[in-house]
Amino acid sequence: MDPERLKALLARVSAGQVTADDALEQLKQLPFEDLGFAKVDHHRSLRTGLPEVIFGSGKTAEQIIEIARSLADGAHNVLITRLDATKAERARAVFPNLSYSVHARLATILHRRPEIIGRGLVLVLAAGTSDLPVAEEAALTAELMGNAVERVHDVGISGIHRLFAHRDKLREAAVLIVVAGMEGALPSVVAGLVDKPVIAVPTSIGYGASFGGLAALLAMLNSCAAGVTVVNIDNGFGAGVAASLINRA
Amino acid sequence: MDPERLKALLARVSAGQVTADDALEQLKQLPFEDLGFAKVDHHRSLRTGLPEVIFGSGKTAEQIIEIARSLADGAHNVLITRLDATKAERARAVFPNLSYSVHARLATILHRRPEIIGRGLVLVLAAGTSDLPVAEEAALTAELMGNAVERVHDVGISGIHRLFAHRDKLREAAVLIVVAGMEGALPSVVAGLVDKPVIAVPTSIGYGASFGGLAALLAMLNSCAAGVTVVNIDNGFGAGVAASLINRA
Amino acid sequence: MDPERLKALLARVSAGQVTADDALEQLKQLPFEDLGFAKVDHHRSLRTGLPEVIFGSGKTAEQIIEIARSLADGAHNVLITRLDATKAERARAVFPNLSYSVHARLATILHRRPEIIGRGLVLVLAAGTSDLPVAEEAALTAELMGNAVERVHDVGISGIHRLFAHRDKLREAAVLIVVAGMEGALPSVVAGLVDKPVIAVPTSIGYGASFGGLAALLAMLNSCAAGVTVVNIDNGFGAGVAASLINRA
Amino acid sequence: MDPERLKALLARVSAGQVTADDALEQLKQLPFEDLGFAKVDHHRSLRTGLPEVIFGSGKTAEQIIEIARSLADGAHNVLITRLDATKAERARAVFPNLSYSVHARLATILHRRPEIIGRGLVLVLAAGTSDLPVAEEAALTAELMGNAVERVHDVGISGIHRLFAHRDKLREAAVLIVVAGMEGALPSVVAGLVDKPVIAVPTSIGYGASFGGLAALLAMLNSCAAGVTVVNIDNGFGAGVAASLINRA
Amino acid sequence: MDPERLKALLARVSAGQVTADDALEQLKQLPFEDLGFAKVDHHRSLRTGLPEVIFGSGKTAEQIIEIARSLADGAHNVLITRLDATKAERARAVFPNLSYSVHARLATILHRRPEIIGRGLVLVLAAGTSDLPVAEEAALTAELMGNAVERVHDVGISGIHRLFAHRDKLREAAVLIVVAGMEGALPSVVAGLVDKPVIAVPTSIGYGASFGGLAALLAMLNSCAAGVTVVNIDNGFGAGVAASLINRA
Amino acid sequence: MDPERLKALLARVSAGQVTADDALEQLKQLPFEDLGFAKVDHHRSLRTGLPEVIFGSGKTAEQIIEIARSLADGAHNVLITRLDATKAERARAVFPNLSYSVHARLATILHRRPEIIGRGLVLVLAAGTSDLPVAEEAALTAELMGNAVERVHDVGISGIHRLFAHRDKLREAAVLIVVAGMEGALPSVVAGLVDKPVIAVPTSIGYGASFGGLAALLAMLNSCAAGVTVVNIDNGFGAGVAASLINRA
Amino acid sequence: MDPERLKALLARVSAGQVTADDALEQLKQLPFEDLGFAKVDHHRSLRTGLPEVIFGSGKTAEQIIEIARSLADGAHNVLITRLDATKAERARAVFPNLSYSVHARLATILHRRPEIIGRGLVLVLAAGTSDLPVAEEAALTAELMGNAVERVHDVGISGIHRLFAHRDKLREAAVLIVVAGMEGALPSVVAGLVDKPVIAVPTSIGYGASFGGLAALLAMLNSCAAGVTVVNIDNGFGAGVAASLINRA
Amino acid sequence: MDPERLKALLARVSAGQVTADDALEQLKQLPFEDLGFAKVDHHRSLRTGLPEVIFGSGKTAEQIIEIARSLADGAHNVLITRLDATKAERARAVFPNLSYSVHARLATILHRRPEIIGRGLVLVLAAGTSDLPVAEEAALTAELMGNAVERVHDVGISGIHRLFAHRDKLREAAVLIVVAGMEGALPSVVAGLVDKPVIAVPTSIGYGASFGGLAALLAMLNSCAAGVTVVNIDNGFGAGVAASLINRA
Repeated sequence: MDPERLKALLARVSAGQVTADDALEQLKQLPFEDLGFAKVDHHRSLRTGLPEVIFGSGKTAEQIIEIARSLADGAHNVLITRLDATKAERARAVFPNLSYSVHARLATILHRRPEIIGRGLVLVLAAGTSDLPVAEEAALTAELMGNAVERVHDVGISGIHRLFAHRDKLREAAVLIVVAGMEGALPSVVAGLVDKPVIAVPTSIGYGASFGGLAALLAMLNSCAAGVTVVNIDNGFGAGVAASLINRA
Repeated sequence: MDPERLKALLARVSAGQVTADDALEQLKQLPFEDLGFAKVDHHRSLRTGLPEVIFGSGKTAEQIIEIARSLADGAHNVLITRLDATKAERARAVFPNLSYSVHARLATILHRRPEIIGRGLVLVLAAGTSDLPVAEEAALTAELMGNAVERVHDVGISGIHRLFAHRDKLREAAVLIVVAGMEGALPSVVAGLVDKPVIAVPTSIGYGASFGGLAALLAMLNSCAAGVTVVNIDNGFGAGVAASLINRA
Repeated sequence: MDPERLKALLARVSAGQVTADDALEQLKQLPFEDLGFAKVDHHRSLRTGLPEVIFGSGKTAEQIIEIARSLADGAHNVLITRLDATKAERARAVFPNLSYSVHARLATILHRRPEIIGRGLVLVLAAGTSDLPVAEEAALTAELMGNAVERVHDVGISGIHRLFAHRDKLREAAVLIVVAGMEGALPSVVAGLVDKPVIAVPTSIGYGASFGGLAALLAMLNSCAAGVTVVNIDNGFGAGVAASLINRA
Repeated sequence: MDPERLKALLARVSAGQVTADDALEQLKQLPFEDLGFAKVDHHRSLRTGLPEVIFGSGKTAEQIIEIARSLADGAHNVLITRLDATKAERARAVFPNLSYSVHARLATILHRRPEIIGRGLVLVLAAGTSDLPVAEEAALTAELMGNAVERVHDVGISGIHRLFAHRDKLREAAVLIVVAGMEGALPSVVAGLVDKPVIAVPTSIGYGASFGGLAALLAMLNSCAAGVTVVNIDNGFGAGVAASLINRA
Repeated sequence: MDPERLKALLARVSAGQVTADDALEQLKQLPFEDLGFAKVDHHRSLRTGLPEVIFGSGKTAEQIIEIARSLADGAHNVLITRLDATKAERARAVFPNLSYSVHARLATILHRRPEIIGRGLVLVLAAGTSDLPVAEEAALTAELMGNAVERVHDVGISGIHRLFAHRDKLREAAVLIVVAGMEGALPSVVAGLVDKPVIAVPTSIGYGASFGGLAALLAMLNSCAAGVTVVNIDNGFGAGVAASLINRA
Repeated sequence: MDPERLKALLARVSAGQVTADDALEQLKQLPFEDLGFAKVDHHRSLRTGLPEVIFGSGKTAEQIIEIARSLADGAHNVLITRLDATKAERARAVFPNLSYSVHARLATILHRRPEIIGRGLVLVLAAGTSDLPVAEEAALTAELMGNAVERVHDVGISGIHRLFAHRDKLREAAVLIVVAGMEGALPSVVAGLVDKPVIAVPTSIGYGASFGGLAALLAMLNSCAAGVTVVNIDNGFGAGVAASLINRA
Repeated sequence: MDPERLKALLARVSAGQVTADDALEQLKQLPFEDLGFAKVDHHRSLRTGLPEVIFGSGKTAEQIIEIARSLADGAHNVLITRLDATKAERARAVFPNLSYSVHARLATILHRRPEIIGRGLVLVLAAGTSDLPVAEEAALTAELMGNAVERVHDVGISGIHRLFAHRDKLREAAVLIVVAGMEGALPSVVAGLVDKPVIAVPTSIGYGASFGGLAALLAMLNSCAAGVTVVNIDNGFGAGVAASLINRA
Repeated sequence: MDPERLKALLARVSAGQVTADDALEQLKQLPFEDLGFAKVDHHRSLRTGLPEVIFGSGKTAEQIIEIARSLADGAHNVLITRLDATKAERARAVFPNLSYSVHARLATILHRRPEIIGRGLVLVLAAGTSDLPVAEEAALTAELMGNAVERVHDVGISGIHRLFAHRDKLREAAVLIVVAGMEGALPSVVAGLVDKPVIAVPTSIGYGASFGGLAALLAMLNSCAAGVTVVNIDNGFGAGVAASLINRA
């Protein structure tokens, strides 16, 4: 029940068209989603520029298309993560304006171009070439959510001068997303060089005692450089969203 | 805002004492706890016979006493779990009717004796002598929540005839709580002998590759005997509550 | 040796046709399964309405068919879990009345329709679309075991108003099965809203630090909402059985 | 070598007082810390309002005092985390203006009161009473770093209406720090209610399969609510710093 | 109901003193422990020379004394493992013939000296000095169960010639118990040198990535030398029992 | 250098055909395998009846054939474990007398039939149908090493009367191999019923919190029934060898 | 900015062609990579004989070729690790002098033959046949980096005389790389026989409780033989590099 | 049997004083330790300058003194690691020349001062103040084994310029020991700056998801900087030994 309907009900009470008791009954039935929080959610993407998001993994192409259709009908921008190429192909047959990055395994169905609403630059750093898909997922997500985004690649800590060559860019950024697998040390080094929020994204790149990204995850959680916060392994999308919220906070 | 106050507001709208717009403003401010769910919670212990519970671990004696006082003032029965003897002593100075089981590390402050409201017998089995504190926590909790409870002790699976000697009791029970450490196999055996709900409680009893109860926990989760559900390691209280809910479901 | 045969033996002793010593010899040989517990097992499904169950994973189609045949010959209802479509196809060639849910990877061979013997409603909630196969396994199992079952889907905690929209249904249920992957928080929230038994089912849905469902499993075991019990990751079947036992306890 | 000294050297080259070769030699010896990044560090606390921080755990009282003295001489505000009461007492004998929170195990030595430089409100939520020390560490840190901070306590998800009673405060916050142990679900619920950055802090509160906070940590990393980032278990200090950086980003 | 009583009952049926129906009733009540398996257990220690065992850890001195008294009354030899010195002192006040090894944390209350009933020599090897308590627990247990036992100490694999100096003893043994912490490699080396059963006992000796004996445990489970079987970390008692059973198998 | 050659050398010294110095030089070069231990190894399979074993996993068909040829030339019986059907086919082309069990993934190349040299019966029990491949690997290995072997299948603990029906067989066995996945409780129950050595074999059968057999492994290591020793997950071969060594110890 | 350019700048200041202020501006812009450390890196492979290395796993053939081209253009020797045969084939079409070891999954593109610059012999030992690919990766890497390398294979500790037959070779080596899976005990034994640096390489060979090489890794980290250092599971390349650095240190 | 005795035996054969058969018998009895390897061990510390080492943890003061006495009698330098102050005090009463570092928990009993036999400088870096005890254990061990050692402290990566200020020292070192807890990234950064062997030592410094040093250990094992090898958590001693062996290799 939105404010208008609530107001109308009260007006009818006020006008003697509905008794207080009947109104009470109606109010008791009033579903939660008509209250404040629900509205936040319902109009969330319109208000905040957040696209609607579908987590593609573990869903069939049919399920994805059905969900996307219901969202897209509402004229929302739609973002589909972890979408493999085959399902993307099938979805494109339904949504001609679907755009797909095979690199980031991410599809977008845009109803309007996102405008830049973030205050500053979101800088996405990737430690190695193999970390690029996750970094690109983060970068595309942040762009879609209305941020200016730049990318710095291949700046692992074992050749730390490569990172330092980008120090102007590091200082320019308002928020930094730092993507690394293996020993996951890059976010700590970066956070020691800037005084801006650093979002660390561990990746599953590695082998053996990397344990699917666990080593990088633990390293980032134990960072001795304060100001680092961490998202799940390979969660480029989550990092992109968090950076967007920070960039407009 | 409880129904009475809501009704009064609507009556004032109806009477023209409050405009629809002003009523709308007041309704917008209406705190969530005045809606249905909140009331469920507020009167929860009175309606269901559930005592109010304080998790004693990690709280100072002062904190425990303060919380207990606010609850007890409301004439609720209060249950304090994981309470060591020193804190219990200090609390008893404040609550003369506090009763303490050093064995189960559990205190109760009763305003009225719990009456039996559970449908059948709750049977608590413990595999070994060292498992008794957890078993007793479960048994006392279930009793406090209005159940007839019986205890069967020292029926570990390595001498399985000891368990079988209690088969009549096993068949009589409506709900069974089975407490075991080490390899944690007792719930599986029991569940194969009855067709009633079995709540498995792993304990931290063991050493080495028991890993603080992990071995027993995993064994219980992997039980090949359907009908077994599991609670946290050493969580006798939780098992007692679950058994109570089942016994009146 | 069933009571009749035992009685006959004693009668022959009484009649002098068998000596006490010979009877003793025969009694020593008496197989365990002739005693009470064995009978419980033998007639278990007839008495309790439990179907016979085959765990399909890791068995060949031939093994499954052979076991199903021996069970079905006994006029039992048969439930086959974790059955892939190919094996289901081969089994259907043998059992024409086999019914298969590709969604829940579950087959049934029914000799008689299960009648409703559970006392109340079993409500199955799933946090996300990807959790549906496990939820459906739980729901179908509970239905097959004689319960009225309803399903509520896509009520994850990050949009908690969607859950609250179903509060009447939550209150109506006698037993709740709550299925969730990722952070596995839904059972805690649900258990805070009802005072009925909640069976939590973690799923392997997730990635990275989900570790195959470990994150959800641990969250559920550590639920701060008493009354929650937990089954193994993806164990929809086990949850369905436990709910059935609770619902007729 | 600061710019002034570098400029002086160049001036002497320009004036012919130093040859190019000699200047080259001197520049080769120029320590790294005289370059740009080093200066960022050297004057870091003055520029950004960050206090100097000493991690108190695993250091002797003597070591802590010695480090604090060298920092305090530089007229910095000093923050000492994880400081037990005994060491705090000894340090106070040396630093009369040392202020100590036994609750948060945190000491401060202030040379000037921190002024509010953060843009908005930092809101710190704690799920349970036992989580308060970590929450307070976060809150005090954020205050010391120049933020308006408010606290909301005891809003665990098993009584979710208590959280909802604070929805205005939730909406008012610019950054949220959410502290929870056990199943660690609170950050997910909160993040579903706001569109601001949420920093999740798992605590070691719990027992059994909590595994010292691992359960809460994993739950937060797997949050289905985008926008959540996570710090180490019990790392209230890190959350406070991250929130400060976000709040002035 | 032992055979004598069963025989007596049948005799009374045969004599017409008890009807077949009454006998049937009595037999239905016949507790499981009167059947064959139970007798195995009841007379187990007398038949096989196994002492009765009390796991001392996690039991109070009172509980231990009570259990020991009930067992000792039956004229059994009693073995108490993981008994600390204080509890041992209290138990000795009750059982004057209690003998205690502070080294192995093991007490015995002997009613008769164990005679040698094992076929061959049980050889107990310990890799390092710190492994001796566990090794001694194994050795004492095996002696108490009637085996000739010899000990070889300090033969870690990093100085492998020390092991080889004992090759005659290795060849002489019928069963070998090999105790090692840290990397736990000794059982593999020993098993490559003999063709007798080797029981590997990992100990919790070590630090860091030993993880309380996990490293040694995993090494032993993965032994490339066939014929090695493993018991729990620090489970000298279990190894002693297994060796005894093997030595008389 | 075998004894004959050593004796010949000494004879030549004795005869003055070789000087002491030259003999010393030759002895210094004497390879280690000519010493005592080496001989044990060299003639190991002939003396003890142990077949030569090739671990098939991770080796190419070519490598397997090459190793098998070198062994088989020595007239040894050869056992190849973890051999898939394709490689078995290729090996059979080279060794016409190769016999392959697709069930146990195990091939044998026999030069002589193994004769029974074990003292008693080796009994192999499997908890479930899915555990049969591992159980069969154990049984075939024990047979090949000269033991009388019998198999008891499908005796999981959730229907414990099925196990008890075999109690005569349990008592007859000299050594028992007990194979179980999931909660891995069968070895504990069996060890409580017999007083013979029990070798527990965890299998990777299970799902979710079975963690690839870890749950069963931990349960078996923590068995409260003394006398149980454990081998690696799915290591039927190792159990068969250990049982053989015990059976002839 | 290299010394020449820096010198030229200073010369122009000295000559009055550039003012001190302008020079200061230019120096402020001076990129980090023009300083000493950067140069170390830039000419690293030329100075030290280290080849340029591409980690092939997780990169597409196109990415690998592109990186290899940029490196090879600089006339460096190039080493590509973890390269599967298909990608190797595609790369060979571009680099005709690419040499590929399918065994070690390692490709080299050599511009000049590596000359021996290591001081002594690098000895690579492998415990089992299945460990050979990792051992070969280590050996080829060390050869490419200018070391004399020898290989000793199939010297697992369960037949320890096979290792001892190579004792002269063990003593001859300057650095030893010891590769082992399963229980990973070989490095400890080897390190007890030599007084040279031993680099331990755990492999993922094994099954069950090997947990993908974790068992071997932990065993090696816990080696009781001092002097052992460890690299990641299956990291033959890293071991080869470390051995090379040690051999020229 | 040393070469002299062997030669004497052969001489007696040659002289006809011993028959070939008798000599063969004596040779068969020849203990392994008389062969080459054993001698290596016996005279190991004299030849190589390695002190004799006692691992103090888990040993009583009496055991330590007894072992130390037997070693010291042989005129060896003795090193006792992980020795607490109380035991050190008791040992000093026996060995007046015992020197104890309470910081590194390490005692030495020197019979002669170690002379410098290492080729170059061993540089020990510690990331934080709390890592100093482990670093000092490494440094003292290396000094005792005859190396020139220098220490660089407090160079954590979050203020990386502090590390760079020591670049000349980094380049000067022949072997580097890098000690770090928390995220353990320092060894990777250091290894990227030098082309010398780097021994990484993870410490247990940290909290929460540090898991007792596991995070640092995994980070170091996954280092993307080749040339890094790793020792156990807190194993300063092992790092010191490995550095010594490398420094004289």
